[in-house]
Amino acid sequence: MGEYEHLLVKREGDTVTITMNRASRRNSLSEGHLRELLAAFEEAGASDATGIVLAGAGPVFSAGHDFGDVAARDLMGVRELLRVCTDLMRTMHAVPQVVIARVHGLATAAGCQLVASCDLAVAAESAGFALPGGKGGWFCHTPAVPVARSVGRKRLMELALTGDVVDAATALDWGLVNRVVPDAELDDAVAELLGRATRGSRAAKAMGKQTLYAQLDRPEDDAYAIAIEVMASASQLPGAREGMAAFLEKRKPNWPD
Amino acid sequence: MGEYEHLLVKREGDTVTITMNRASRRNSLSEGHLRELLAAFEEAGASDATGIVLAGAGPVFSAGHDFGDVAARDLMGVRELLRVCTDLMRTMHAVPQVVIARVHGLATAAGCQLVASCDLAVAAESAGFALPGGKGGWFCHTPAVPVARSVGRKRLMELALTGDVVDAATALDWGLVNRVVPDAELDDAVAELLGRATRGSRAAKAMGKQTLYAQLDRPEDDAYAIAIEVMASASQLPGAREGMAAFLEKRKPNWPD
Amino acid sequence: MGEYEHLLVKREGDTVTITMNRASRRNSLSEGHLRELLAAFEEAGASDATGIVLAGAGPVFSAGHDFGDVAARDLMGVRELLRVCTDLMRTMHAVPQVVIARVHGLATAAGCQLVASCDLAVAAESAGFALPGGKGGWFCHTPAVPVARSVGRKRLMELALTGDVVDAATALDWGLVNRVVPDAELDDAVAELLGRATRGSRAAKAMGKQTLYAQLDRPEDDAYAIAIEVMASASQLPGAREGMAAFLEKRKPNWPD
Repeated sequence: MGEYEHLLVKREGDTVTITMNRASRRNSLSEGHLRELLAAFEEAGASDATGIVLAGAGPVFSAGHDFGDVAARDLMGVRELLRVCTDLMRTMHAVPQVVIARVHGLATAAGCQLVASCDLAVAAESAGFALPGGKGGWFCHTPAVPVARSVGRKRLMELALTGDVVDAATALDWGLVNRVVPDAELDDAVAELLGRATRGSRAAKAMGKQTLYAQLDRPEDDAYAIAIEVMASASQLPGAREGMAAFLEKRKPNWPD
Repeated sequence: MGEYEHLLVKREGDTVTITMNRASRRNSLSEGHLRELLAAFEEAGASDATGIVLAGAGPVFSAGHDFGDVAARDLMGVRELLRVCTDLMRTMHAVPQVVIARVHGLATAAGCQLVASCDLAVAAESAGFALPGGKGGWFCHTPAVPVARSVGRKRLMELALTGDVVDAATALDWGLVNRVVPDAELDDAVAELLGRATRGSRAAKAMGKQTLYAQLDRPEDDAYAIAIEVMASASQLPGAREGMAAFLEKRKPNWPD
Repeated sequence: MGEYEHLLVKREGDTVTITMNRASRRNSLSEGHLRELLAAFEEAGASDATGIVLAGAGPVFSAGHDFGDVAARDLMGVRELLRVCTDLMRTMHAVPQVVIARVHGLATAAGCQLVASCDLAVAAESAGFALPGGKGGWFCHTPAVPVARSVGRKRLMELALTGDVVDAATALDWGLVNRVVPDAELDDAVAELLGRATRGSRAAKAMGKQTLYAQLDRPEDDAYAIAIEVMASASQLPGAREGMAAFLEKRKPNWPD
């Protein structure tokens, strides 16, 4: 994998692990850091890996935007920063791999947005989640977008208006993460869930992930209009053909992609 | 009720029970089976019944699409199959009756979609739910549409990407079913919930059910634009008039429809 | 604060408490009562208060529409009533203050809609929630709009089709309220949550609240299109400037608004 200033990126087997490595800045998301994350997701996305783990080095997962990189910007400068940030979130959805967050500590503001934008998330018991703009001067408008789509409205309002941290157990109850485990078991739990989420035809899963994000948050008829056409097309591809043939012939499938 | 090859359909009191009866094929949804389900829902929908129970015979509720009926189809053939399947789901929403799933065993892929598309669902403790395309070759694009609208985004991703079975207790926690009961109490629990859900004016409830599905998954202003007009119109109908009169006169209502 | 016939409105510190005071009519929402609530929210919204508590006097929070004020109305009359009611719900979202429901008893039909339309809600253990139109003659079409946006689809269907009361613990589990506390601790819990939700820059929070409601229930790309522009603009305002400067200078912020 390429070299990065703010990231550690490694490939092991079918998994690329992208670790935010600005521990001294609590992995806050300066424009340079965001652009490297975007490049790393694009690089991993273009590889033949099946899964991507997003992790953070140091005590904090990510503290969100780096005020040192925001405070002096004018309107167009902040707008550009938020566009890069949103491109990153969209790219995490667009890559063919399953993206899973490994949340070992605090994930706040755009750091919480990163967790919400991963397909799956596993948290250590000592992790915490917050949209702290709500008790500050710059509201967490964009982080609230994917968080709202994981938790209910009243819970979103509580997170966004109070700005306070909710613990990992609450995040699990609200649907912001998929698993909470003792801190020492975090890597095993990430590997276990990612392993189960990356079986089957790689091409079929890549299409599936795109369709899921495309059909969400739309009236059901619009969602079906998307899903029917993709699913019909997908039935003609080698992965689907092999999967059905293997099932009907009672043998293990041999995924062609 | 009419005669069906793949279904058992019976009327008892105000309830029509439609039982998928292809146990040897795990109630998988061949085009013939889907077309019979569609016809049975249309027949029950045109009757004066107030509730419809959807059940499955044999050990499995429904295993989803029948690969034996998909594998040889070309694109237009699969597209047609999915259109019939989606027509069935829409018809389950469109009938004036309350539709409740009686889930006694595994409900996978389009079988899980059936559960998600019923208005209400009661599961036995031994039931299970999965979108198994995620670990195969043909992703569960269309089944994920109503499932996404019952559970949160991270939970949808876990179901759709892993393809693994979640148990009934998890399905209850995630909002995919309304009740989980010991297997021996399943029929009683279905009857109890359906009984409570079918009281009141039949015409008012039929309108109500349509408006609920019409307003979901839309921006709130759009939803109110729909709901205000229907609710104002509904106030002029005999059921509403009788309900209000009975309340104001402190007597039991005598529903006119 | 102004004088009202059906309400008690008082200002204490930064909080305006609006108490529905038609206990003999179970705080049912006649047109007169709705118009006073709308006026009171507009008055409080124009004040420099930071929080608004919505409460009810007597044993019931609110029983919803007043059938005595509906039964004789024609179509255009009911339509007008529902438009006033919906204006009230929209105004509760539009005011710059954080709006919190103090639910001490039953909240049914449009009373339940009031709870769902508050930004936050705290319930006493003895509170209850219902959409009773489902077992009557006039379905709860409009109350179901905000309730659907707080609870999942199957839970909405159960509330709306059965019309039965769910208790406070269930409402908490489903995400309809943020806290449930023993009845004697209700006021303290409301004050505690409202206190945490009203810290920080008042102008920033007012913008934040609007953006949250604007971006909900839309496809994620549409939501980001809204949130990016508001968040970029907000970064240039005095609250954001002061918040970032205080953070970088390691001092307490002095909110300018």
